Amino acid sequence: MAKKAMVYIQSGGPTSVINSSLYGAIKEAELHSEEISGIYGSLHGIEGLLCDDLIDLGKEDKNTIELLKQTPGSILGTSRHKLPKDYHDKEYSLIIDTLKKHNIGYVFVNGGNDSMDTCAKLSALCKELGLDIKVMGVPKTVDNDLAETDHSNGFGSAAKYIINTVKEIIIDAKCYKKGKVFIIEIMGRNAGWLTAAVDLLPEGLRPDLIYLPENKFDLEKFLSNVKSLYEKKGNAIAAISEGIIFERDESNVRVDSFGHKQLGGAAADLAKIVESRLDLPTRSIELSLPQRAYSFLTSKVDQDETIMCGRLAVQKALEGMSGHMIAIKRVSSKPYQVRFEPVDITKIANVERRVPTSMMVDDTKMADSFKEYCFPLIQGEIPVEYENGVIKSAVLKKVKVQ
Amino acid sequence: MAKKAMVYIQSGGPTSVINSSLYGAIKEAELHSEEISGIYGSLHGIEGLLCDDLIDLGKEDKNTIELLKQTPGSILGTSRHKLPKDYHDKEYSLIIDTLKKHNIGYVFVNGGNDSMDTCAKLSALCKELGLDIKVMGVPKTVDNDLAETDHSNGFGSAAKYIINTVKEIIIDAKCYKKGKVFIIEIMGRNAGWLTAAVDLLPEGLRPDLIYLPENKFDLEKFLSNVKSLYEKKGNAIAAISEGIIFERDESNVRVDSFGHKQLGGAAADLAKIVESRLDLPTRSIELSLPQRAYSFLTSKVDQDETIMCGRLAVQKALEGMSGHMIAIKRVSSKPYQVRFEPVDITKIANVERRVPTSMMVDDTKMADSFKEYCFPLIQGEIPVEYENGVIKSAVLKKVKVQ
Repeated sequence: MAKKAMVYIQSGGPTSVINSSLYGAIKEAELHSEEISGIYGSLHGIEGLLCDDLIDLGKEDKNTIELLKQTPGSILGTSRHKLPKDYHDKEYSLIIDTLKKHNIGYVFVNGGNDSMDTCAKLSALCKELGLDIKVMGVPKTVDNDLAETDHSNGFGSAAKYIINTVKEIIIDAKCYKKGKVFIIEIMGRNAGWLTAAVDLLPEGLRPDLIYLPENKFDLEKFLSNVKSLYEKKGNAIAAISEGIIFERDESNVRVDSFGHKQLGGAAADLAKIVESRLDLPTRSIELSLPQRAYSFLTSKVDQDETIMCGRLAVQKALEGMSGHMIAIKRVSSKPYQVRFEPVDITKIANVERRVPTSMMVDDTKMADSFKEYCFPLIQGEIPVEYENGVIKSAVLKKVKVQ
Repeated sequence: MAKKAMVYIQSGGPTSVINSSLYGAIKEAELHSEEISGIYGSLHGIEGLLCDDLIDLGKEDKNTIELLKQTPGSILGTSRHKLPKDYHDKEYSLIIDTLKKHNIGYVFVNGGNDSMDTCAKLSALCKELGLDIKVMGVPKTVDNDLAETDHSNGFGSAAKYIINTVKEIIIDAKCYKKGKVFIIEIMGRNAGWLTAAVDLLPEGLRPDLIYLPENKFDLEKFLSNVKSLYEKKGNAIAAISEGIIFERDESNVRVDSFGHKQLGGAAADLAKIVESRLDLPTRSIELSLPQRAYSFLTSKVDQDETIMCGRLAVQKALEGMSGHMIAIKRVSSKPYQVRFEPVDITKIANVERRVPTSMMVDDTKMADSFKEYCFPLIQGEIPVEYENGVIKSAVLKKVKVQ
């Protein structure tokens, strides 16, 4: 078999382990130097292939590669670019040109629903054109809404960050005899997995109320819950998904290239309603970007699995597989065991998996089945390397592939 | 000398090492059991003395006391209560009654400017009444605005949290070719020490612009800075103190019992102005409560010094001192050396220490002298104890003192 190069694409929003997938793929590729002629990275997601902007990851120092495991953000850069629907569009021929130019035989797309759509299109196109190019997906999204996989790489770490941060906020919030109403906003547009995760906190440390976008948000019931909690104990703490829907001023909201509204600000808007309707001191806290960009609270289970998904994507591509994503299938929760399985990517692209009703007690509380599902995913701590009090991050040399 | 009990008061807003001061005081008191008859905690700040609501910290488990070092929030509870100006007011006699009832000879007040005011009044009153009760202050405030001390317990850890969190946000923010304008809001009402701290990040990882409340905020210059940065590199990142002043709607702002406006929301308001004036995608991030309530990024230097301040307050009180706060005096920055010194509390109460102009290059950048000052304070990491993926916190039994 002729030697071919591989290219790795990071797509969509980062997670705190997004660069651990890349680490796994690089480490696996290094074991197959007789088959892989070059390990390339595409800068800024698919844009790197559109503009022939690739870097040679084989030229990076060993230390830099190790640091990938504690580096947040997409080290290769990412993009919000959406490929056209029609894959006979000129954009695809630009991509194919880049792939051919650099003798690329293996393409890895690391991303969520939208990115798996990119992956599916590319794979289909290569097949149609009779090109010997394998395209594989590596799952990634803090939202945990990818279909066909038990959970997504990045979710466990984001959940661990959120659980621990919300715990610290709640301890702080409870210091006063007469405190405030706290509304904590957590990522999750249509799927409330991350918000649900705070229900893993023990009684006394969990938010009083948890609202997922899966359920219809009843503002009046929310206000009456908050009022009675505050009267009883001098504070009320609610965790809400950014995607819950209530009447608010959306005149300034931006829309991205996938047609998704830019979210954020739900807690602030809700806090204003609480202040004006209940006249209670209220504070909103949006957990914001750190949820998906924190190296301090990475889950070891998540990182280990993420590295494994990166490795397996490379292995499967070398075996000749294309158009599949490495999914995680749960064997058991107690003890926690999983197996990894490639899944046809067309089953995943543009599909959203939401929290099932069976995992909820009611619209403010999760069931034990959810806790059993989620607890294993936040286990294990990873020591991180500091320099002068600041956590070290990888910085790439970015040697351009000519 | 007759044995007397001690009581410890936590006052004002928490820091991530507030319970480390208490830890230091308890550990020191345990060494002096021949002089100290009981180690009590006042629940909810000064309210515990007003309402005779004390707990016996000697009844807590050893493990719980150790966990204080990684427990955020005021474990004894805190209060926004301000004592009356006239210390012949009835409230003071209630406090004296509680102190007499429990044979208390030593009072420790852990807090910031406002709390040192409480401390000064109590100390003066005991002296006037001829009571053998020593009242000592233990410094605490993330804002670092206490006078007469090189820095305040809690500042270093908050700065370390902020520096590292802002770094992760910036790495995440730079993933896109065309990104956003980011406005990060950091605690600091009148003093910008915490915001200044982000300037310790290396070039490429520091915010482009830093605005402290010490300088007049020039909105037009800010907008023009943001515009040219965005045009040049596809993003612009500004860190602002919550206390910077610009024209905004303050009709809903609440005022606390010390007459301070409840802050927060400056970044969100500023983001709206950027969006409307420059038509650039903008995101505001308020670092919010985690700044002062995080056990994961505690600075070892800060924690060690904090424990020492707690210890020394007890030692000095036993030596007969009253009306003083344990201050930290810097001997040198390279190598970092400090000495601890009791300072007359009337010099500290209600005084605010702001970032001097000499520590700034201009209104958007700090000078090297600031970096030399701040760097030693964020050094050293402390391993924390987890249970099932969640960091452990102390939970007190709270055995009431009868």
